[in-house]
Amino acid sequence: MTEILVGSYLFQRLKQLGVNSVFGVPGDYELMLLDLVPEAGLTWRGNPNELNAGYAADGYARVNGVGAVVTTFGPGELSNMCPIAGSYTEFVPVVHIVGYPTEAAQHGKNIMHHSLGEVGDGKFNVYHEMSKHITCASAVLHDAKTAASEIDKLLNAMLLNSQPVYLGLPTDIAMQKTPAINLKFPLTTELVPNKPELQSFVVEKIREMMGKAENPIILVDGSMYFYAFFMSPVLITLTNADTARNRLLKETKALIATTGFPYFATAMSKGFIPENLPTFGGVYGGAGTLPEAKKVVESSDCTLWLGSYPARPIFGVSNSIYSGEFTEKINENTTVDFQRFFVKVGGVRFDVKMKYVLDALVEDLKKKPLSYKTKSSMGSYLQDGDFVITETGTSAFGIPGSSLQHISDIQMFNQTIFGSIGFASGAAVGAFVAGKEAGTVKRNILITGEGSLQLTVQAFSDLLRHEVHPTVFVLNNGGYTVERLIHGMEASYNTVPVWDYGKLFRAFGPDFKTRQYTVKTPDELDALFADEEFKSSSCAQIVELFLGKHDAPLAMKLTTAAIEEFNKRSRMKRGKCR
Amino acid sequence: MTEILVGSYLFQRLKQLGVNSVFGVPGDYELMLLDLVPEAGLTWRGNPNELNAGYAADGYARVNGVGAVVTTFGPGELSNMCPIAGSYTEFVPVVHIVGYPTEAAQHGKNIMHHSLGEVGDGKFNVYHEMSKHITCASAVLHDAKTAASEIDKLLNAMLLNSQPVYLGLPTDIAMQKTPAINLKFPLTTELVPNKPELQSFVVEKIREMMGKAENPIILVDGSMYFYAFFMSPVLITLTNADTARNRLLKETKALIATTGFPYFATAMSKGFIPENLPTFGGVYGGAGTLPEAKKVVESSDCTLWLGSYPARPIFGVSNSIYSGEFTEKINENTTVDFQRFFVKVGGVRFDVKMKYVLDALVEDLKKKPLSYKTKSSMGSYLQDGDFVITETGTSAFGIPGSSLQHISDIQMFNQTIFGSIGFASGAAVGAFVAGKEAGTVKRNILITGEGSLQLTVQAFSDLLRHEVHPTVFVLNNGGYTVERLIHGMEASYNTVPVWDYGKLFRAFGPDFKTRQYTVKTPDELDALFADEEFKSSSCAQIVELFLGKHDAPLAMKLTTAAIEEFNKRSRMKRGKCR
Repeated sequence: MTEILVGSYLFQRLKQLGVNSVFGVPGDYELMLLDLVPEAGLTWRGNPNELNAGYAADGYARVNGVGAVVTTFGPGELSNMCPIAGSYTEFVPVVHIVGYPTEAAQHGKNIMHHSLGEVGDGKFNVYHEMSKHITCASAVLHDAKTAASEIDKLLNAMLLNSQPVYLGLPTDIAMQKTPAINLKFPLTTELVPNKPELQSFVVEKIREMMGKAENPIILVDGSMYFYAFFMSPVLITLTNADTARNRLLKETKALIATTGFPYFATAMSKGFIPENLPTFGGVYGGAGTLPEAKKVVESSDCTLWLGSYPARPIFGVSNSIYSGEFTEKINENTTVDFQRFFVKVGGVRFDVKMKYVLDALVEDLKKKPLSYKTKSSMGSYLQDGDFVITETGTSAFGIPGSSLQHISDIQMFNQTIFGSIGFASGAAVGAFVAGKEAGTVKRNILITGEGSLQLTVQAFSDLLRHEVHPTVFVLNNGGYTVERLIHGMEASYNTVPVWDYGKLFRAFGPDFKTRQYTVKTPDELDALFADEEFKSSSCAQIVELFLGKHDAPLAMKLTTAAIEEFNKRSRMKRGKCR
Repeated sequence: MTEILVGSYLFQRLKQLGVNSVFGVPGDYELMLLDLVPEAGLTWRGNPNELNAGYAADGYARVNGVGAVVTTFGPGELSNMCPIAGSYTEFVPVVHIVGYPTEAAQHGKNIMHHSLGEVGDGKFNVYHEMSKHITCASAVLHDAKTAASEIDKLLNAMLLNSQPVYLGLPTDIAMQKTPAINLKFPLTTELVPNKPELQSFVVEKIREMMGKAENPIILVDGSMYFYAFFMSPVLITLTNADTARNRLLKETKALIATTGFPYFATAMSKGFIPENLPTFGGVYGGAGTLPEAKKVVESSDCTLWLGSYPARPIFGVSNSIYSGEFTEKINENTTVDFQRFFVKVGGVRFDVKMKYVLDALVEDLKKKPLSYKTKSSMGSYLQDGDFVITETGTSAFGIPGSSLQHISDIQMFNQTIFGSIGFASGAAVGAFVAGKEAGTVKRNILITGEGSLQLTVQAFSDLLRHEVHPTVFVLNNGGYTVERLIHGMEASYNTVPVWDYGKLFRAFGPDFKTRQYTVKTPDELDALFADEEFKSSSCAQIVELFLGKHDAPLAMKLTTAAIEEFNKRSRMKRGKCR
């Protein structure tokens, strides 16, 4: 029987899942493994540290469908725990591959470097135990003969749950042979269909609620996007950004078109659902919603809520649909809650999968049309083909309020639930690389705040060397603005040190062409947005937007556009290409 | 009974232990707590990210005795796990204070942001559970009335074990009242004395071995330094760098003086034990030792090994004294292994503490002197008053071979066992701040490699704004040299992106005076070391030392001086103060 190195088997499997780039930081327990990356036709994209690497893999997975990050035993993997916990929370499928000491070293209970150094007990299982809390499945390989099936089991778990998995790969096992035959059998990328009788019953219940409704709406939420990827049977053959864009969009668009109901986005789904249909109602986010959208959503007597996160947080105020403590005032009795593995109709839960229920519902609607009559409802810089990544905090909260009605083809995401600052810059590396590989993205735009940027500023280095020509907006208001709004408006701990961002940008990639701009007034910003050279994004660009210390996009009080907010302010210095 | 806020109680206790600075990154669950930092007379020193913050607290603790770092629930604390695991492995006492959601939020099982977002179960215990693996004690406070005693219990555990502890502090509990009376009773900073009969027996056994020896030696190892601090009864009154310097040094110096035995340092203890006595024999490190020192140590028939780490790693090769697989060829039968909580004489372990045994042994030697006759044995830039921090990897492995015989007063450390690259730059922030507070340090010197620096380069920002005037040497050989030597000499994954380090230094602190230098030849380095302005270290300085791609200090093959190594190479560009 043909055999293959365990490490090669892993990378071949990832390649089958559409992975083209692998992120990480080289370490002594994984060096030989890295030799196998290019052999499998993948590109190694090392990062300055693991925090950046983990975010890059997350960003890549959100675009490409699956991401992979390699770290080394101990310090390396520990520094990747924050990114992995974020992927876990937000349902982003990432393989965390950890280079382990050899089997002999582990069984000998020796004190290896990077181990916790306990006498007589190397405690080689400690980091694995820690990782179990933040992954849906995990394994450390101990036997090359069963390695192929162990790897498949892990990857299938990742695909099923759309969450990260942890794979410990000892240096010796990685270079041993395992049967290659499994590679001929594809991984499981389709969910088991629903039971027909139960599905029919649920569709009937939904139709009942829809039939009685006078103000029905569709709320397209963000988890959709993550949950949905698994259901795409075309995943394996599609290796470009279309994969991400096509997840449950087809089903969602069909529902919107067939019902004619007004539809709304949320902060999590913003940018992934087109807003150019006449029935688009705006972005809903509880207390932060514009009054007209808020009124329509909260007075609805039939809410089809697709892929909601069980509860979305707004500044520490929990807003669970179950507990009633939400600022989102949506009546559970008149809501259909569509989830990956279940659908709740008026609070009653059924064990059916969203995707198949949506298909069946649309079919049913086509056969027996609704009598509903369509009603109607409600950014200069953003364009078709843009890929926009925004930071948790100031920059993310500003974007949902910007009108995207002129755009039909834009991608956008942020890390809404886990909310780890520094995520955007790290994730942008992976996302922009994935977009570049797919060839469908015209401009890469990163919007972050200076406080967040300081955690993962090394990402500049990767953005430059992978030549993704990002346009980076740094909102500089001299501190942690979100924290200020919560507590400590004048406290020194909410101040961050003064950096020269333009100089940093150049210093992190002295060999690459870059442009830098500083903007201090709305006129300057208008001039910049009118500048053809700037708009073309033909090289990496950084724009430092100076805001007053206490400024924040109105969105944090009542959702509104960050970019429009800058327009209310004042002077732009023009950058030069170097 | 007088009461005090729980948060204030904590900071008062830290103040009593000599802590003056608290490191961390502000987050929404800890903001009110941070208001209490200055109220307790402590200085808040926020860092750009948690990786840097955790390393800074570790560096501070190595100098000051105890360190403290504050992070926020979830992402913040996860990003601090690598530094805390390092402190755990290397016996550095650090309090990791984590700002938690309110009690109500936790008990309500709501999905808070930064939680893992599981439906109906906030899983608020997950991060705490993960941290238990890398701390010697941990607690999340739930009741203000018992908070004072919970805090004391934790801090006492930290002091006893000389390892990190984890304290989860919900935002509401931190601001509630707890009895203040406990503050009048000092924490436990002295070990319980040994049983007199057992101690006398052990001393007698040691004297027996010493009496028969023809080539006895003393090997002063690094764990001493960490293990030892607890035993200093003067800890609470001493709040400067002398605390660290005086740990078991008094006892060790007494043993060296009383016996007259040749004494040796190791990579871990280098810099903490004076080398200016005529009996100093050099630095011992197994296969990496200079031949003359190696011969003396390995042929010894009585090795008094003080504070050895149970086994020290050399490039992944375990070298346990117990397993016999060490490259350090020391005969256990003729070794006295002095440890914090036990002493092994010729392989037999006794339940007695090193400190008291050393005291008793020296007393005994004074009463009944040995007949031993003293034999004898074996850096231009380093001076008295220098504080030198070196990175794991290239830079650390070069230093132990440099002669420090002209220096009696130098401090130096690195993270030898856990070996997490990026540590040095992060830890330098804490260590240099502690040194500045103590007022005893003349020059702060950080030696790192460019690959390591890239993980925590944000530390530049803190080094500049805390005005510790560091002189930073960046050994630039265009990649991960240690990894290259292990595997992948020409592999692209061992290449790091090109950065302009001088420009970065200025960009991270545009408001501060800095000097920058590049050195490419030995003549340039000689000229730099002769330059009075440079030697004075009157402002922050960065020196980029260009080495060939495959250069590494000989120490990695056979211990030798990194600095001398640069001397074999070629051109220096002079920097200017801006």
